[in-house]
Amino acid sequence: PSPSKRRYSITLLPGDGIGPEVISVAKNVLELAGSLEGIQFKFHEMLLGGAALDVTGVPLPDETVSMAKQSDAVLLGAIGGYQWDNNEKHLKPETGLLQLREALKVFANLRPATVFPQLVDASTLKREVAEGVDIMVVRELTGGIYFGKPRGFSTNENGEETGFNTEIYAAYEIDRIARVAFETARKRQGKLCSVDKANVLEASMLWRKKVTAIAADYPDVELSHMYVDNAAMQLVRYPKQFDTILTNNIFGDIISDEASMITGSIGMLPSASIGKSGPGLFEPIHGSAPDIAGQDKANPFATVLSAAMLLRYGLGEANAAKRIENAVLDTLNRGFRTGDIHSAGTKLAGCKQIGEEILKSVDSQV
Amino acid sequence: PSPSKRRYSITLLPGDGIGPEVISVAKNVLELAGSLEGIQFKFHEMLLGGAALDVTGVPLPDETVSMAKQSDAVLLGAIGGYQWDNNEKHLKPETGLLQLREALKVFANLRPATVFPQLVDASTLKREVAEGVDIMVVRELTGGIYFGKPRGFSTNENGEETGFNTEIYAAYEIDRIARVAFETARKRQGKLCSVDKANVLEASMLWRKKVTAIAADYPDVELSHMYVDNAAMQLVRYPKQFDTILTNNIFGDIISDEASMITGSIGMLPSASIGKSGPGLFEPIHGSAPDIAGQDKANPFATVLSAAMLLRYGLGEANAAKRIENAVLDTLNRGFRTGDIHSAGTKLAGCKQIGEEILKSVDSQV
Ligand SMILES: CC(C)[C@H](C(=O)O)[C@@H](O)C(=O)O
Ligand SMILES: CC(C)[C@H](C(=O)O)[C@@H](O)C(=O)O
Repeated sequence: PSPSKRRYSITLLPGDGIGPEVISVAKNVLELAGSLEGIQFKFHEMLLGGAALDVTGVPLPDETVSMAKQSDAVLLGAIGGYQWDNNEKHLKPETGLLQLREALKVFANLRPATVFPQLVDASTLKREVAEGVDIMVVRELTGGIYFGKPRGFSTNENGEETGFNTEIYAAYEIDRIARVAFETARKRQGKLCSVDKANVLEASMLWRKKVTAIAADYPDVELSHMYVDNAAMQLVRYPKQFDTILTNNIFGDIISDEASMITGSIGMLPSASIGKSGPGLFEPIHGSAPDIAGQDKANPFATVLSAAMLLRYGLGEANAAKRIENAVLDTLNRGFRTGDIHSAGTKLAGCKQIGEEILKSVDSQV
Repeated sequence: PSPSKRRYSITLLPGDGIGPEVISVAKNVLELAGSLEGIQFKFHEMLLGGAALDVTGVPLPDETVSMAKQSDAVLLGAIGGYQWDNNEKHLKPETGLLQLREALKVFANLRPATVFPQLVDASTLKREVAEGVDIMVVRELTGGIYFGKPRGFSTNENGEETGFNTEIYAAYEIDRIARVAFETARKRQGKLCSVDKANVLEASMLWRKKVTAIAADYPDVELSHMYVDNAAMQLVRYPKQFDTILTNNIFGDIISDEASMITGSIGMLPSASIGKSGPGLFEPIHGSAPDIAGQDKANPFATVLSAAMLLRYGLGEANAAKRIENAVLDTLNRGFRTGDIHSAGTKLAGCKQIGEEILKSVDSQV
C-alpha cells in the first residue's frame, strides 16, 4: 500500500431488470469506501445481456469484452428477462454471460452461502438447522458440460432427432480449481468436501482421482468426497457439516443455488469469479427480477457485498472490503430491510434508501 | 380378477447391508396381503451388488438377469458398502444396478416425496413449509449421461489426461418418459413441472421442445418449465408448489434425493422403475446403511411401501397395494417407529418388530 492514491479501472455491467438499480448503489458504496482508503476508481459502464441485445443485436458486444479485459475488475448486476426467453441460443442474455466468463477465463466461481444472524428466520429451515450455516461453494466455471464439445443436434441411425452435450474435464482444469478450493478451505475451517458422481461418470472419476492426489499438497486441509445426490440431501439435512465445497460447473450450478436458498438470505449473497490473472467478475447470485424492475424495490445488499468481494479477491484491498462488509452488517443491525427480507419490527426501505443507509454506515466507521 | 387364484413370480434382490433385513419384512407383508386378496406369490431370491460380487465376481450375474426378466416384478433391497467402494467401475455394486435397469429397460423412475403427517417434525424444514408436501418425481432412468456414448478417458492434444461423458437424448426417449409424467400428473393434481437446463444445454433444449409439443395431447394437465438450479432452490423455498416433476436421469438423481430429504421421511420412501412392458423394478430410495446392517435397526417401511408400488404399478393389484399402504399408516398411528424416525412419545422398535406390527395391521383390516 503506497502512500499515493491507488487507481483502479472498473467495468460496470448493469445488465437487465433490477441490474441498473443495484449497480448504481454498489458504485456509490465502492466510491466512498475507496476514497476513505485512498483508492480512486474509474468506472466504465458497458452493455451485457438483454440490454446489449436491444442495442447491438448481440448479448456480449466486442467493446464490452475489450473494456472488461482492460479493466482491473468487472462488476455485474443481473441479466435476462421474459422478452428474450425464447430467443435462439446465440441470442440469449445467458449466452452473453457464458461468453464473458470464457473471455475472462474466470474458471473459479466462489459462492458463499452464509446465514446472516439478523435474517435467520427468513430461512425455511428450522432455526437450529439454519443458524450458523457458513458454506463456501467453489464451482468450476469455464469447463465441463457448459462448454464441452461436441454439442448440438443430430439425427441418429434410426432417423430420430437427438440433442447432445459433452461433459469433459482435463487434468489441468481439475488441478487449478482444486487448488483454489484447498487454498480457500485453508483460510476457513480447513474442511473441503468435493462433490461428484464418481460412481457413474468417468469425468467424475478423473475429478476424484486428481482431487485426492492434490490433497497431498494440503495436509492441513481435511478432504472428503460426496456424491452429488447425497450432497443435495445433506445440505437439507444438516448444512452445518459443510465448510468449503468443491464441485464442477453443472453440479455447482445446482448445489450452490440450493445452498444459498437454505440460508434464506438469497437477496444478500454475492459471488466472485476469478481466473489465473486478469480481471475477476463479481455479481450477486440473484436474477434480474423483471417483475419488480424500476420500482425501487430491489435488494442491493448482494451487489454491495459483491463489490466487497471485488475489493478483496479482485484488487487485494481487504481494508476497503471490510469497511463495506461492516457497513452492511451495521445497516442490517439498524433495522433497514428491503421487502424480500422485511419482517415485523424492522424498517421497510427501497433500494435507494438502503443505499443511502449503507453509505452512512461506511462513513460512520471513519 | 378371476375367482381362481392369481399367481405371480417375484424376483427378490436383497443386496447388501440392511437389504436382506428389509426384504425379509417386505416379503412377509406381500405374502399376507396377497393371500387376503387371492394372490399367490412365488419368490426367487437372487444375487445383486456386493453380495453378487463376493460370490460370483460380477455385480449382476446372468442368472439374476434371466430370472428377473422371467418374473412378473422385481423387489430390491439396497446395494453397496465400503468394501467395494474402490473397486474398478465394472466391479462396483452400483454398476450392477445400472446394468439391471438397462436390461429390464425400465426407463421411468417414479419417486414419491411425501410428508407423512405423523412424521412432519422429522423434516428440517419448518412445519408450515413441510406439512402437506406431496411430490411425485418422474425421472428418466435408462438414458442421458448415465448411458451416453462416447464415454471414458483419453489424452487430449496437449497430452493431458481427460475424463468425459455424453449427455444425449433422442426424441423417442423424451416422448415416452414425458407421456408417463403427463399420465401421472393427470392422476394427481394435474400439474407438471419439467426441469431442465435449456438455457445452456442442447440436450435440454430438445427436451423442452418435445415436452412442450406433447403437452398438446394432455390439455387437462398444466405444464410449466423450470431450470434445474431454480428447481433446487424452489424445493427448499416452497415445496408445496410442486405436484409432479419430470426430469432427466442426472437431474432426477439430484432433485429427487433433495425432494425426499425435504420430507424428512427418507426411511419411508419407495420407488418404482417401469418400462413399456416386462417386469418393473421396485426399491426403497435409501441406501444399504452398512453401519447398522445386521443389528435389527433398519427401517423396513420404505421397502414395504415399495412392495405396495410393485402391486399397484407392477401387477395392477391396487386392492392389495392399498391394504399395505393402510397397514403402514396404521402402524405409524399405533406409534411404532424405528430409530431413524423415533421421537418422544412414540414406541422404538426394531426392523423385525415393525414387520410384525405391519402384519398385524394388514390382518386387522380383513
Ligand atoms: C444464467 C445461467 C447461464 C447461469 C449458469 O448456469 O451458470 C446462472 O444460473 C449462474 O449460476 O450463474
Ligand atoms: C447408486 C446410483 C448409481 C443410483 C443412481 O445414481 O441412479 C442411485 O443414486 C439412485 O438414485 O438410484
